[in-house]
Amino acid sequence: MAAGGRASEPLAELSHYVVARPIYSEPGFQEENERRPPLPPTLRERAQAACRCSRKRAFQIAKSFLPILEWLPNYRVKEWLISDIISGLSTGLVATLQGPFPVVSLMVGSVVLSMAPDENFLIEGSNATGANVTGALIDTESRDAQRVLIASTLTFLVGILQVIFGVLQIGFIVRYLADPLVGGFTTAAAFQVLVSQLKIVLNVSTKNYNGVLSIIYTLVETFEKIGTTNIADLIAGLLTIFVCMVVKEINDRFKHKIPIPIPIEVIVTIVATGISYAADLEKKYNAGIVKSIPRGFLPPEPPNVSLFSQMIAASFSIAIVAYAIAVSVGKVYATKYDYAIDGNQEFIAFGFSNIFSGAFSCFVATTALSRTAVQESTGGKTQVAGIISAGIVLISIVALGKLLEPLQKSVLAAVVIANLKGMFMQVFDVPRLWRQNKVDAMIWVFTCIASIILGLDLGLLAGLLFGLLTVVLRVQFPSWGGFGNIPGTDIYKKVKDYKNVIEPEGVKILKFSSPIFYANIDGLKSSLKSTVGFDAVKVYNKRLKALRKIQKLIKKGKLKATKNGIISEPGINNEAFETDEEPEDNQDPQVPTKEVEIQVDWNSELPVKVNIPKVPIHSLILDFGAVTFLDIVAVRSIKTIIKEFERIDVRVYFASYQDNLISQLERGAFFDDTIRKDIFFLTVHDAVLYIRNQMTYSDNQDPIFEKISLMQESKEPIEFTEASQPDDELDVQEEAMRRLAS
Amino acid sequence: MAAGGRASEPLAELSHYVVARPIYSEPGFQEENERRPPLPPTLRERAQAACRCSRKRAFQIAKSFLPILEWLPNYRVKEWLISDIISGLSTGLVATLQGPFPVVSLMVGSVVLSMAPDENFLIEGSNATGANVTGALIDTESRDAQRVLIASTLTFLVGILQVIFGVLQIGFIVRYLADPLVGGFTTAAAFQVLVSQLKIVLNVSTKNYNGVLSIIYTLVETFEKIGTTNIADLIAGLLTIFVCMVVKEINDRFKHKIPIPIPIEVIVTIVATGISYAADLEKKYNAGIVKSIPRGFLPPEPPNVSLFSQMIAASFSIAIVAYAIAVSVGKVYATKYDYAIDGNQEFIAFGFSNIFSGAFSCFVATTALSRTAVQESTGGKTQVAGIISAGIVLISIVALGKLLEPLQKSVLAAVVIANLKGMFMQVFDVPRLWRQNKVDAMIWVFTCIASIILGLDLGLLAGLLFGLLTVVLRVQFPSWGGFGNIPGTDIYKKVKDYKNVIEPEGVKILKFSSPIFYANIDGLKSSLKSTVGFDAVKVYNKRLKALRKIQKLIKKGKLKATKNGIISEPGINNEAFETDEEPEDNQDPQVPTKEVEIQVDWNSELPVKVNIPKVPIHSLILDFGAVTFLDIVAVRSIKTIIKEFERIDVRVYFASYQDNLISQLERGAFFDDTIRKDIFFLTVHDAVLYIRNQMTYSDNQDPIFEKISLMQESKEPIEFTEASQPDDELDVQEEAMRRLAS
Repeated sequence: MAAGGRASEPLAELSHYVVARPIYSEPGFQEENERRPPLPPTLRERAQAACRCSRKRAFQIAKSFLPILEWLPNYRVKEWLISDIISGLSTGLVATLQGPFPVVSLMVGSVVLSMAPDENFLIEGSNATGANVTGALIDTESRDAQRVLIASTLTFLVGILQVIFGVLQIGFIVRYLADPLVGGFTTAAAFQVLVSQLKIVLNVSTKNYNGVLSIIYTLVETFEKIGTTNIADLIAGLLTIFVCMVVKEINDRFKHKIPIPIPIEVIVTIVATGISYAADLEKKYNAGIVKSIPRGFLPPEPPNVSLFSQMIAASFSIAIVAYAIAVSVGKVYATKYDYAIDGNQEFIAFGFSNIFSGAFSCFVATTALSRTAVQESTGGKTQVAGIISAGIVLISIVALGKLLEPLQKSVLAAVVIANLKGMFMQVFDVPRLWRQNKVDAMIWVFTCIASIILGLDLGLLAGLLFGLLTVVLRVQFPSWGGFGNIPGTDIYKKVKDYKNVIEPEGVKILKFSSPIFYANIDGLKSSLKSTVGFDAVKVYNKRLKALRKIQKLIKKGKLKATKNGIISEPGINNEAFETDEEPEDNQDPQVPTKEVEIQVDWNSELPVKVNIPKVPIHSLILDFGAVTFLDIVAVRSIKTIIKEFERIDVRVYFASYQDNLISQLERGAFFDDTIRKDIFFLTVHDAVLYIRNQMTYSDNQDPIFEKISLMQESKEPIEFTEASQPDDELDVQEEAMRRLAS
Repeated sequence: MAAGGRASEPLAELSHYVVARPIYSEPGFQEENERRPPLPPTLRERAQAACRCSRKRAFQIAKSFLPILEWLPNYRVKEWLISDIISGLSTGLVATLQGPFPVVSLMVGSVVLSMAPDENFLIEGSNATGANVTGALIDTESRDAQRVLIASTLTFLVGILQVIFGVLQIGFIVRYLADPLVGGFTTAAAFQVLVSQLKIVLNVSTKNYNGVLSIIYTLVETFEKIGTTNIADLIAGLLTIFVCMVVKEINDRFKHKIPIPIPIEVIVTIVATGISYAADLEKKYNAGIVKSIPRGFLPPEPPNVSLFSQMIAASFSIAIVAYAIAVSVGKVYATKYDYAIDGNQEFIAFGFSNIFSGAFSCFVATTALSRTAVQESTGGKTQVAGIISAGIVLISIVALGKLLEPLQKSVLAAVVIANLKGMFMQVFDVPRLWRQNKVDAMIWVFTCIASIILGLDLGLLAGLLFGLLTVVLRVQFPSWGGFGNIPGTDIYKKVKDYKNVIEPEGVKILKFSSPIFYANIDGLKSSLKSTVGFDAVKVYNKRLKALRKIQKLIKKGKLKATKNGIISEPGINNEAFETDEEPEDNQDPQVPTKEVEIQVDWNSELPVKVNIPKVPIHSLILDFGAVTFLDIVAVRSIKTIIKEFERIDVRVYFASYQDNLISQLERGAFFDDTIRKDIFFLTVHDAVLYIRNQMTYSDNQDPIFEKISLMQESKEPIEFTEASQPDDELDVQEEAMRRLAS
């Protein structure tokens, strides 16, 4: 990251400020618009407008691509120029002293290191072996050239992706960077930085590991070689860390009393450079010093397209992170100065900026909150301030680089480490997060571990997918339960959670709190079984089995069918009844299956030994209050469920549905001759009242016999066909799978 | 697939039948259990039980791993053996004539081809060039050995993954293979088969492409070289396709009249072999014939672990598909014979079976519906039938292979093509699907295209992720709207969708039909703004601005503050008032901001020109009926929303919440001194009644003045601080992002 970062910084700055909007919205324009409300155009005006239209629109488009056409001609020199100059100078100084934005730099750096490790640039004939490059000579010139090429190619690709995201209007994916995800990710990033800087503080050489677990290998090797630590570098580093942390603590405690924070990093750097130069630490103690900083600028170079395929995953992560950072900072000022940010246009702007930068050996552009804050607080008004601050950085690099050459690298590394405290402190968020929301805590931990193990780019993608998966799982495994009435009200609550909640006689109410789609259809079915207490298909099959046996017994004269049901012939010993064994239909096909019409009361004692689960209900209400969408698998499966229950004389009703559900069901061919819209009710209570009404009118007998008579009066006689043949179309989802097996 | 498939088939068969359960559940056991209901154990029995416990449990575990210990000792020779033998013979014949299950074979085949293409096995010195391997000599022996190794290694890895899925209890991921996804996937598979067989029918040589778009490249090259078609092979192929399709159509039309379908594939194969042998097509017309089929069996060989990393994605897809097929077929019979399938145990069983098979050069095991159906319908009872059918396949391979050597390859390819009709017919599902549910249609098309472009394994994974993404998007972008009362009822419906729906005076009701989490917090906020018609933060900031101006005017003596509000001093010209321009606080710091206490009626005409959006409401009700979960970002953001509205004197209430929501909010530190549980109501109507009640009691004046007085009586005076400072903690989600930028 060092190689690509230095030379490109001023341009990255520039490209940032080209993207940025003027800090203050222009009240002049707004007022003008407010003063001239649009009047309806006359015919003549319309004709004129048509002529001007194409030219005007072209200019509008040009302005939207190049906002400078909008603001520069309207620049108020007297009002804004001085503010802009002051602000530009301040911002430039801060930028020089603070350097680039850490997270994106780290992500770019890890790509660069993994694609152009030191091992690729060993000079032939030097004493290098595969395992040890410490003493080997490295062709730093071609290495750095290759690294710059990789960084700029990456920038170019990031730009392309950002433009694509913007054009496809999917700026919303930035929202997938959830709060816990960002927490875990930044902590992992801090850990990566710590490890990479630790070996510099110790001045211990390790291999450049890359790929999975590289940071762990680096850490292990650093400790294995801890015997080779350079004491001069270690002392300088530890001192720097100590001083920086103490002064930062002071800055923090007395921030209301001191006008500006003490720039301890600058002071330490200057002092350390002086000491190193005076004491000649390099020669006397073999300390690792900065030595040479490359100066000047590289000529424009086209990106290396052949590298694209290797860096696509990393580019994806970087494109999102860089953009997310910039927009989050932008929103602070958008709220403060009351203008709106168009997320997708920002994506396009950043994209073109990065595509352009990529051709000039530049680094991915994003935003630094600290510098933006400085520019705003010092009164910067327009991008002119940005140009000035970029100029300052440019001068610093060209002029000041030389002076820093005797500085120990361990001091620079220590300055970085001293700034990591805040990021590591985030670890203490995890226990609180765990108490508040276990899933969010898991996202935090998963993203952190994945980013450490897989690297920042793949780790971020893994965390992002994990976060989305938790959403799917939370939708897939919702809460559900049988509901009952709170007496005297029209309120229905979960039976398990409340005392004195009463389930209406013969009615079960299931609330399944989730949209229903392919992944939770099984869940709906099993929650149904558990709520009603039986399996509708099983009951139907068992009833069929019992019917066949009863028919056999009637044929043998052991039973008699009357209009009130079946009675066993007197004097027949019950022990002689058929056992609950498979009737072996295949080998006994002479028993006709549709000969005698029998009415059976399934809730009474049957004269055959078949274990038929009791069906204590006549109605089932599904509370669809939380079913916000259905997919086609769900529509078909619910239709199947209704028919399965109808077969055993249980009516299914739907309540509290969302309005758009009906049209979804209509499109899904849900309604037919038997399933009509009269099974939908506005509320659960309406459905219960309707059912109660139906029951009262259909039968005024004693409630115990009510169900029995209902069974007997059932309009659709049970057909004597086996349920669930392999070619039965009832289970749609299974059907699809079986297509694969045929 | 050919190389690995042949030799391994009998063992794949075996491993399949080892996994399969006995087709009929054993009624003997069930009865015994039913006859002996568990009695409460006496003390002595308990002591005995403790002793037996460990031995018994070990045997239980052994049985669950090796079900054969359960069923073989209880095998009823007299009842079952003859059925098993008949069934085994039939199934074995069908298996011999039909070969392995197409989709999984195709997936394994594509991995084998891509990892060991012909080009890797060119014999040095032959006339091959990079672009043309047609005339080159290929070391088929080492190629086939390598391919068998790849196939068996893949089988081993698939087995490991399946065991892992089973142990982790994530059998539910099979549910992610939605109906439209399977449709698109199988159609793409059919397309892959068609292209791979087409070049065989034409006897045109192409390169073995692999990776992205390989099937398209193959198709293009096939057509480029169509001039080299072998006419003898083409004619044989076309004739075969024609005959097979006609006879299959007849089979289908008269399936109720003919006892068994005409086995046209077998007839065609035998006839074609005879013709090819008699006419010596190979020599006379240079036809491509089968030539040599390797016989015998390979010794056990350990899988090549170093290949694992290259085939992990493909293994993942294959592990899921193979399992999903088997379970879907199993469920048909589980329902029919009333036993349950434990999905996770099946995963483990398939896994161990594949791990074992992988060591014996075997192929991934799954289930073929057709053969299972044959075994069941011919009366097969136990795995003994499976063993017998595997024996038949074994004999066929060893004995019959030699006889098929003169057969033209194009005939075999044509037989395969003739069987693809049904899979291609699925394309006609798409328009219907589009009408029924656009998202499902998109899943179909995406999976199909992805599987064609990326290959079957990656395509399936891509389709799976796409399907899950559609779920996230549907949850992320829910329907929402302002709700109003249907007069005379306690029902509230969307204002836009219904006529005569009335919004209560001064109350807005928003229903956001989705769980609220990090990805749709923005959506909630913008739907809020759109429903209430103003931006709460903006209103607050504008009011602050106006207050500052009013203070200035009071200071200058142009306004006067009374206890009833502010009045302009008589005689002052309105034109002299300040304009709506930035008051430039930074350059004018001497104006004190907290000097005069003023009561302002924000809904009246103000004496300063600041465009403050009107706030026509005093209460906001959020209908949380479909909010099934909240994450930590949502909890914090909703808290922020409440406080933002309180600042402008709008109270926020929640209605129709799910019970588990309150505990989620409690854990998320939602409630504090100002936000208490009294803002939660069981229904929207309850909330509206409460608000109406509050309004009546708090003020009995004319309703127009009601709001004004409410403003003035507000307990919390507006503080004169700027909203949304960068360090303001209001927006949590943005805050996380800004941490990256600091």
